Order: sequence, then C-alpha cells, then structure tokens
Amino acid sequence: MPSMSSLLIHSVYKDSEIVDVLIQNGIFKKISTHIPLNSLDTDTKIVDASQKAILPAFYNAHTHAAMTLLRGYADDMSLFKWLHEYIWVQESKLQKEDIYWASRLAILEMIHSGTVFFADMYWHREETIRAVIESGVKATIGVTFAENLMDKNAIEKNFDFLKEMKSVHPRIKLAVMPHSIYAVESDLWKRCAREARNLGLVLHSHISETKEEVETCLKKTGLRPVEYLESLGVLDENVVLAHAVHLNEKEIQILKKRKVSLVHCPVSNMKLSSGKLNMKALQKAQISVALGTDGAASNNNLDMLEEMKIAALLAKTEGDPEVLNAKEAFSMASLAGAKAYQWNAGEIKETQDADAILVDLNNERMLPMHHLHSNWVYSADSRAIHQVICNGKPLIENKKVKDEDLILENIRRVHHDLKNRH
Amino acid sequence: MPSMSSLLIHSVYKDSEIVDVLIQNGIFKKISTHIPLNSLDTDTKIVDASQKAILPAFYNAHTHAAMTLLRGYADDMSLFKWLHEYIWVQESKLQKEDIYWASRLAILEMIHSGTVFFADMYWHREETIRAVIESGVKATIGVTFAENLMDKNAIEKNFDFLKEMKSVHPRIKLAVMPHSIYAVESDLWKRCAREARNLGLVLHSHISETKEEVETCLKKTGLRPVEYLESLGVLDENVVLAHAVHLNEKEIQILKKRKVSLVHCPVSNMKLSSGKLNMKALQKAQISVALGTDGAASNNNLDMLEEMKIAALLAKTEGDPEVLNAKEAFSMASLAGAKAYQWNAGEIKETQDADAILVDLNNERMLPMHHLHSNWVYSADSRAIHQVICNGKPLIENKKVKDEDLILENIRRVHHDLKNRH
Repeated sequence: MPSMSSLLIHSVYKDSEIVDVLIQNGIFKKISTHIPLNSLDTDTKIVDASQKAILPAFYNAHTHAAMTLLRGYADDMSLFKWLHEYIWVQESKLQKEDIYWASRLAILEMIHSGTVFFADMYWHREETIRAVIESGVKATIGVTFAENLMDKNAIEKNFDFLKEMKSVHPRIKLAVMPHSIYAVESDLWKRCAREARNLGLVLHSHISETKEEVETCLKKTGLRPVEYLESLGVLDENVVLAHAVHLNEKEIQILKKRKVSLVHCPVSNMKLSSGKLNMKALQKAQISVALGTDGAASNNNLDMLEEMKIAALLAKTEGDPEVLNAKEAFSMASLAGAKAYQWNAGEIKETQDADAILVDLNNERMLPMHHLHSNWVYSADSRAIHQVICNGKPLIENKKVKDEDLILENIRRVHHDLKNRH
Repeated sequence: MPSMSSLLIHSVYKDSEIVDVLIQNGIFKKISTHIPLNSLDTDTKIVDASQKAILPAFYNAHTHAAMTLLRGYADDMSLFKWLHEYIWVQESKLQKEDIYWASRLAILEMIHSGTVFFADMYWHREETIRAVIESGVKATIGVTFAENLMDKNAIEKNFDFLKEMKSVHPRIKLAVMPHSIYAVESDLWKRCAREARNLGLVLHSHISETKEEVETCLKKTGLRPVEYLESLGVLDENVVLAHAVHLNEKEIQILKKRKVSLVHCPVSNMKLSSGKLNMKALQKAQISVALGTDGAASNNNLDMLEEMKIAALLAKTEGDPEVLNAKEAFSMASLAGAKAYQWNAGEIKETQDADAILVDLNNERMLPMHHLHSNWVYSADSRAIHQVICNGKPLIENKKVKDEDLILENIRRVHHDLKNRH
C-alpha cells in the first residue's frame, strides 16, 4: 500500500490564535497550537501559512455548472423571455464536449473563488463527473428528471444508472433530482422519493422560484407547492429545495416539521426579478438554509464570496439590519451546504474532510482586522485567496489551477463552434 | 521644458474591434485601428495589450475614504446604534496620521479594483489630499461643514481655505460639502451654495438617506428634504446629492428641473437597512445617477465592480428585470460620476482624460465573451484587472500598487495604536 499523503499547515491564524493544522488522508487529523516537526511522518509536506487565516471552503449548494458556456448570453430580461427565446434555444445545441469544458470552466472559476464543492443539476452528467474527478474538487451530481424533456426510456435509464452507479468516486455523491413540480408529475415524484430513500441519496429540486409557479400549482392542485409535495409524502430530512422565495407560514411549518433543507440563491432571484426569500421567517423557524449561485447564465458567476455578501445585504432590506450577520452568512455558504448534502465537512475541525481556504491577511481588503469574519464576508474578493484545499490537496499552484490555460483555450474553441452551429 | 510622456496601448480590444490607443500629456490623443510606430515620438512607451480590453476606469462618486480604518469595526446593527455607540466613538479618536494612512489604504484598494477617482467627504482633508497626490489618482475633496461638530471659527477657516486654495493640484478639485440638512442650518446652507457658485465648485451633500431624516425635516419645516433645499434656493446643476432613497414624485420633479445629479450607494443602503433608491422612477425622469461605495465602515469595501453589479440587481427587485441593464450600470459607475463632478473623463474617447482599465480577457470570468459589458458588470472581480491608468499613467506594476507594502505595514501600526488609545 502506498504511503498516504500528509500535509502540515504551519503557523496559521484560526479563531484568534495561531495554530498548526495536520492533514492526513484527506482529513483534519490534528489542530493544535504546536505540532512538533519531529512527530511527523518524514514525507509530510509543510506549508508555511504565516500571515494567512484558515477558513472553511465554500459549498455551493445549487448550480448548473455547465451553464458557464451561456454566461452573459442573455441578461436584463424576464425569466420567460430569457428561457424561451435564449437559454433553451442554446441549450438544445449543446453537445457532450461542450458540457465537459463548460464544467471544467465552472470548476476553475469555483476554485479561484474558494469553492471545493457544488451540487449540480444538468444534462450529460457523465461529462460533469469527469470534470470533477480530473479537477480535484467534489460534487453531488444530479440524476435529473424532467418529463417535459425526457421519454419513458430515458427515465428508466436514469433509475438504472442510480442503482448501478451508487458509488462513482470518493469525491462524488449522486442525488436524485426531479427538476420541479412543473416538470415532473406526481407519480414520478413519488418514485424519485422512494428510490432516493432506498439508495440513501439526497433528493434535490427547485421549489417556489416564481409567483407563476405558485399560482399554477394552486390552480392545478388546490395546494401551494410545499403543501403539494407534502401531500405526495416526498418530504423528509434528505430533501434539499432551492429558491423557496414564495412560501407562506404554513409551508414554512411543513418544511420545519419534515426537516427539509433549503438553498438560497439571492443573485439569481434578484437578477430574474423572481422574488425574495424571507430569511427572517426561516431563521425564526430554525430551518437550515444553504447558499447557491445557481447557474452562470443567471448570476453570472459562481462566486460564493459575492453570493454570501449579497445574501446578507438582501436579508436586511426589509428594515432590520440585524438579520443574517456575517458569521451566519458564512456558515450558510460552507457548513450548511455540506450538511444538506451529507458531507462530513464545512468546519476546520478534527475528523472532518480537510477542505479549507488560506486567506491572505496582507490583502488590502483584509486590513485592518477588527473582525476576520466581517472582512471575509463584507470586504474580500478572490484576490485575498492564497490557497484552496480539497480533501487535503492544495488546488492552486503559482496562482493557477490545474489545466487552467488548456481549459480557457478549449472554452474559446467550443464557444466559437457553438456560435456557428445551427 | 521636459518632454511630455506618451504611451501607446497597442492592439487592445475596444467596442468589438482591435485598436491602438495613443495617450499624450495624460489625454487620449488618438484612437485608431492602426497607429504606425514610426509616427510616434521616440520616447513613447509601448504597452502590448493583446488579449486585453480597454474600458473606462471607475469614478466613485461618494465615499469617506479614511473610514477604511473602521472597516468591519461594527456590522449588522441599526444606523443609530452603529453611529452613536461605535463609529462616532472611534472617529473622535482619529488623528491626522491615521487619516493619511487610511486614505492611502482606501486608494490602494480602489486602484486594485479599477477606480481612479473618488469624491470624498471627511475631516483632515489635507491628509487625504496628500494621499491622493502621492498615489497618482484623482479626487474631488470636500471642504466639509457640520455645525453640530464645528464652531464658528472652524467654519470661517473652511471658507478662507476655499478661497485661497481654489487650485490645489491638477489631479484634485475641491467641493463645498455641507454634511446634510440635519447637520447644517439654512443660513449656512445658503452661504455654502453662494460660495460654491462664486468659486465655480460643485456642492455635495447627503440627502434623504433614512425615513427618520424625512420625518424630522417634515416636522421642523413642513417640507420634505428636497423641497426644503429648493425653498432655500440652493439647488442647481452643480449640486450632487448622495443616497436619495426616500423621494416622492414632487421631489423627483424638482431634482429634474434643477438638473441636480444623484449618487446611488446601494451596498450601504442595504447594509444599514436605510431604504431603496427608486431607479425606475429616476430613469424615467432622466435624472443623472452616479454610483458610490460610501465609506468602508458601512460597505465594507470600496469596490465599484461589486457596487455596480449590486446596483443592477437591486434595481430589479421590484419585479422588472429590464431596469438598469449592464451598460447602464457601468455608465453610472464611470461616466456619470465624472460628469457629476465635472471632469472631462469617463469614456475612452479622444480629448478626454486618459483614465482606463485594461481587462484580462483570459480571466476565467471573462469567458466565454458573448457580451463584454455583461461579463464586466455581472461576472468579473478584481482578479480580471490587468492594469489601471489614471491621466495616462499606469498605476500597477508587477501586480502591486506604489508603496503597497509600506501602506499595509502602517495600517497595522495605526490600527494597533488606535486600539490602545483612550
């Protein structure tokens, strides 16, 4: 058996003190004010982290990674026009190779902005899986169901894939992802939930993203979206729902009772004028809310630093500046996402997955340091990121991510091809 | 007379084509698809800008630069508590040297995020002036009036300074800055406006930042804030007012009639739960709106890239995603600020001041390039900035700004001193 890799992060700022952090086999093994060098395995790599802080890496809890290829393709218009006249037209032209390179671009961008995990709902999942494996990050990859776009055969193939491929790679989990209440009918919803429970997988979907969705559901079923899912018996603690900007108090109580996790996507909700998540009510009900960027076509980046600042700002626009403070916003962007998707990660803590960001405390936006979390949430941008570590492995070398130039070159090429494709 | 400096930006992307840009004496002299090298003065410096785009630099139209020293000192609380229990207590301890280094930190941060100009309202203006001169940017520096904090003697000294110092430096303009309607009484407001007109200077103030301000004004004068200033006869096209989040239609019509410019500070307004500027109504009235970060204590950075994205997002939260598109948001952040403060700048255009950003088109967030402005407003962060040019002079060398390490070292020192000062 080959010797397992060890990494010592030496002399790093954590929770107001300077510590050493020992990582072994991708796990935080020991965190202590002093780890003697002579106690280490001889092949331990030592990283000098003076003037750096160690913070949990970001967990992006809702995205469509390959939509980076449609970044900036259509902005500043209604969701309906955006989807029907622009996004779906382009998506219908996307091929497997596009999805692969667009996923690599997404991951490149995520690493540079401190994200090591994303939950992905898209097509050609095998291409995104390949991109995740090659790039060193981790992901929960959706097996996506949408009856408006798939025939029966494709749906059965999805279920077969789930059973056969339960374990794809140590850095990848699968999840069952019925797209939404408008793209998946009640029978398939029930079957998705049953299979997710049988296989011990998370079930992830969109919910209540627009007023129209709520109105249509009410007309069709007499129930609001969360009430409707409750009536199907599909809600439980393995369910993660994104957006949730139009909930009434009864729906909030259902989500609480069923221990459902939510994912807040403030930038996408604002950009598409979809509506606004009621953070104060959800905090009061103690519902777990993670943070996601949504796809790059409606954001238009995958930057969780920006997302958590905007989440904190948006929560305060109802008149209460105390809602969602800096520490809470950061926890949404890291720990809450890891918990929702059932990864043992999200904190700098012994026995957890060694996912971390080393932040440059000499970056001009990290100074002066009255409160580290405040500077991180409200002031920093990605220039303050010195290193990003996933499962104990540093992902940045000489300011670049693996294959960076190759990825950018291929994005130019597939973008050029896409423009000329009819 | 020494020979004047010339700079040729060679082969740069501008408005969908590749051009050469010749800068002489701080001005865009010639912009053309091909400027022959043998037509240049022999001492012309040539910058290869292939794979770069040239865009107007940012004009930050409202800030309090030296408040960088209070970055993150107090967050997530009401404006009243924030001001009375935290900010004013700390500000009363600030000394001249603090203001100097805090201004240098602010400018360092602004350069790294593409800003070459700021309009500043604060104390110890001579320290901020010194910081601007030494750092190579430009500024409109306020001579600040606040009767609650100044005696008669100090007010007279301000007016003397304005008359004596009309021309401080080619990169600095002065402006008359009565703090607000609650800190300056009607007689002083009228005198400020008279002096500004006599000296040909801009008058800048805060207006209608909070509901309380509007209510207090109504109680005291029977008029809303803008109506009150109109009744004093102080409004004209040289007036620039920041915040303006609580305006009614009558006030909007007054601002339009008097050709007043406004400054939108979305991050600060959101963070302090102050209220929301009505972008749609102001656009409809064709009122010029520039963009400002406000001080770092309520933002907590001075990043105009972030500010313009958030402005565009916030404008869409009333249900109309077409309000404030990417190009409009960028124009607010550049041209509108330059115009409000009467600088011949804000566009990449012959005869204008040569202020520009060179954007790295190989940055992962600038790809693919469906629309340059969309990527710049909605996707980029400061990592995409390759160079920042003010009055023809590049301000970044080997990824660093002049005196960068010295500034950061001194910020650590003055921050440490401030903590131990009673």
